[in-house]
Amino acid sequence: MNNKLAACLAGVKQTTPLVHIITNYVTINDCANILLAVGGSPAMCEAADEAFEFSQIANALYLNIGTLTKEQELAMYLAIRGAQIKGVPVVLDPVACGAIPHKVDVIRKLQQFGSFSVIKGNQGEIKALAGMEAQVRGVDSIDGGDNVVEACQKAARDFGCVVVATGQTDVVSDGVRTCQVENGTELLTRITGAGCMVGALIGGFCGANRDMYLASAAALATFSLAGELAQEAQGGKQPGTFRISLFDQISQVNQNILRDRSRVKWM
Amino acid sequence: MNNKLAACLAGVKQTTPLVHIITNYVTINDCANILLAVGGSPAMCEAADEAFEFSQIANALYLNIGTLTKEQELAMYLAIRGAQIKGVPVVLDPVACGAIPHKVDVIRKLQQFGSFSVIKGNQGEIKALAGMEAQVRGVDSIDGGDNVVEACQKAARDFGCVVVATGQTDVVSDGVRTCQVENGTELLTRITGAGCMVGALIGGFCGANRDMYLASAAALATFSLAGELAQEAQGGKQPGTFRISLFDQISQVNQNILRDRSRVKWM
Amino acid sequence: MNNKLAACLAGVKQTTPLVHIITNYVTINDCANILLAVGGSPAMCEAADEAFEFSQIANALYLNIGTLTKEQELAMYLAIRGAQIKGVPVVLDPVACGAIPHKVDVIRKLQQFGSFSVIKGNQGEIKALAGMEAQVRGVDSIDGGDNVVEACQKAARDFGCVVVATGQTDVVSDGVRTCQVENGTELLTRITGAGCMVGALIGGFCGANRDMYLASAAALATFSLAGELAQEAQGGKQPGTFRISLFDQISQVNQNILRDRSRVKWM
Repeated sequence: MNNKLAACLAGVKQTTPLVHIITNYVTINDCANILLAVGGSPAMCEAADEAFEFSQIANALYLNIGTLTKEQELAMYLAIRGAQIKGVPVVLDPVACGAIPHKVDVIRKLQQFGSFSVIKGNQGEIKALAGMEAQVRGVDSIDGGDNVVEACQKAARDFGCVVVATGQTDVVSDGVRTCQVENGTELLTRITGAGCMVGALIGGFCGANRDMYLASAAALATFSLAGELAQEAQGGKQPGTFRISLFDQISQVNQNILRDRSRVKWM
Repeated sequence: MNNKLAACLAGVKQTTPLVHIITNYVTINDCANILLAVGGSPAMCEAADEAFEFSQIANALYLNIGTLTKEQELAMYLAIRGAQIKGVPVVLDPVACGAIPHKVDVIRKLQQFGSFSVIKGNQGEIKALAGMEAQVRGVDSIDGGDNVVEACQKAARDFGCVVVATGQTDVVSDGVRTCQVENGTELLTRITGAGCMVGALIGGFCGANRDMYLASAAALATFSLAGELAQEAQGGKQPGTFRISLFDQISQVNQNILRDRSRVKWM
Repeated sequence: MNNKLAACLAGVKQTTPLVHIITNYVTINDCANILLAVGGSPAMCEAADEAFEFSQIANALYLNIGTLTKEQELAMYLAIRGAQIKGVPVVLDPVACGAIPHKVDVIRKLQQFGSFSVIKGNQGEIKALAGMEAQVRGVDSIDGGDNVVEACQKAARDFGCVVVATGQTDVVSDGVRTCQVENGTELLTRITGAGCMVGALIGGFCGANRDMYLASAAALATFSLAGELAQEAQGGKQPGTFRISLFDQISQVNQNILRDRSRVKWM
C-alpha cells in the first residue's frame, strides 16, 4: 500500500495542483510555503468579488474557518458553490467547531452551497461533528483520544465524505475504509499551524489524485514524515528552528522516502 | 523579588492560560508562536459573530490595534464587553496612537465597553496617552526616552491600570509601584513584532496570575531575557536567524533561569 | 552605473523611508521584515478610517492586490488619493491581474484616484497589462519570457510610469530607459512572497530617492543579490532555511557589496 501513497505524492509533483485557499491569517504564510515546498501551487483568493470564479479554475479548494471574518465567510459560500459547479474537490478544516457554536452554523450553511470531499480536524473537532462528547479548549483538543476511529467513521457516513482526525496517531476514514497514520513527532504540537498546514496539503493531494481517501492518507504521511526528519535534522527540541526545518525537509520527501518510511496501519 | 517573577512564569506553565487575541496581521503568527512557546494557549478569534462569547471563556484578552480593520474594531468592542462581564483581564497595545488620531478615538470608545488591566506601548505611544510631547514616526517611537517613568505613572493613574512602556529599558507602573526591566538586546528593534509579542505574552502572564503589575514585569523579563539568549546562541547580528532563535530560547526559559538572570530595578 | 545603484541604497539607509503598505496577508510579515532589514520603516495601515491620512505622511505607498478584501480595496482608493495630493510615490503590485478579471477593474479604478510611480509584476502580469498574450496559472507566471522587454516598454508608455517585470532576469523600463538585472537565484521561486518583498523594497527605495527608474533597479539588485548571498551562506537548496537567511543577508548588503556584485545590463 505504501506504493499507493508514493504514487499520490508523485501526482502532486507531476501536476502542480492549483489550490484555492481561504484560511485564517495566523498561519496563512505557513500554508502557502508548505504547499509550495511539496510541489503544489497555493493561491489565497478570498475577496468576495473573486472567490466564485476562482474556485472554478482551481484543482482543489481548502476552507479553514479559524479566523472567520465576515467577508471570508461570504467568500467561502461563493467559493464552495463554484467548486460544486465544476466538480472541484473541497477540503474543510472545522477549526474550533467544538468550542464556538457559530462555527457549526457556518459548516451547516456551507453544505447548502456545495459539499465537502474531506473534513480534517483535530480529535475534539471531529468528535464534536460526530455528535460525540469531546474535550476542547479554545482551538485545541485536549481529548484523551478514545473512540476516535468510531468518530471518524460516523462523521464520514454522516457527511458523506472522507474524514481525518489528527492527533498522536492520525485517523482517516471514508466510512468504509479506515487507516491510521503513525508517523509524526510531538514537536508538531509545539508550533502553531501544523493542523492548517496538513489541511492545505490535503487540498494539494486531492487536487492531484482521484481517490480522496488515499490522497488524504498520503498527505498526512508526507507531512508527519517531514516532521520526523526535521526533528532528526535538528537534534534538539526547539520550536522555532523545528518549524523552519519542516519546510526544508518536506521539500526533500520524495516517493522513495515516503515508500520506505510511511507507517500506515490499514484497518 | 526575582522569586516573584519566577512564580509568575510558573503560573503560566502550570495553567496554560487561554488568551483571546485580536491583533494585527503583520505579526499574528509570531504572537501565536511566542505564546505557545512560553506555555500559553493563543486563540485568534476576531469574527464579530464570535468575539463577545469567546472572550468570556478566555483567561485573558489581548487587543492590538495595529492594522485595525472595521470588523476587528467591532469585534474588539464586543470582546472587551464580554471580558468586562466575566472579569477577564484585558491587555491593550495602543499601536501608533501617537501618529494616527483615529487610534485614540478607538481607545476612548473601548473604554465605554469595558476597561483595561494593562496598557503596553512604546515610549512614544505611552507619552502620547499621558498627554505629553512625544516623537513618533509611523508605528515607531523615535523619542529620546526622557520622562518615561513619569509618563507611565501618569498614564497608570489616568487610565486606572498597569502601564508598560517598552524601550531600551522597559518601565512598568501601576501608579503606585514602578519598576524598570533592564534585560534585552538592540536586536529586538531589528525585527518586526517584538512589541506585539510582548503584548501577547503579557496577556498570557495576566491570564495566569493575579497581580497584573508583577505579571507584566515577569512577561517583559522573560521575553527580554529570551532575546539575550537568542543573541548569545547566534553570535552574530542577523535579524532573520535571531527572530527564529527567539522562539527556541523562550521555550527554554524556566523559573531558575528567570530568577538568576532577570535584571529588574524596583523603584 | 553601479555607483548610482549604491547611492540609491545609501539613500534608504540614511533617510529610513516610512513606507505605507497595504498588502496581502500571506506575506505581510515578510514585507515588514525585509524592509526593516534594508533600513526602511514599514507601516501596514489598511483601515479605511486611516488610509487617506496616513499615506499623506508617508514617504512612499506600496499597494499589493493579492488578497484584496473589500476594506483593503476601499483603503487603497483612499490611500492613493492621499498620496496623489502630497506627491508621495506609489508602487503597484498587480498580483494575479492576468488570471482574475476583477483585479484589472481595481487597477483601472485606482487610476481614477491617483497615479502609479512604479508597477512591478511577474512576466505574465506585465504582459497582461501591456495587452499581450501571457501564460499564467493562478498567481504564478508560467510564461516563457519572450518579449518581456517589449512588454515593459509598452506598459511603461501606456501607464506613464516605471514598469518592472520580475523573472529569471528582471526588466525595468520607464519607456525611454531600460535595463535588465541579472542577479538572483532559482531558490527565490521556491518560497512564497519573493515578489511581494521586492515590491515593498521598491517602495522603500522610491521613498528615499528621486529617480524611480534607478531606485527600482537598485531595489531589485539589492534583493536578488541577497538571494545569491543566502544561497551561498546556506549551501543547500532548502526553502525554509533559505527564506530566513534572506533576511540575514539583506541586512548585510551595503554600498560596497552592491557596487561590486550588481550585474545590471543597461540597454
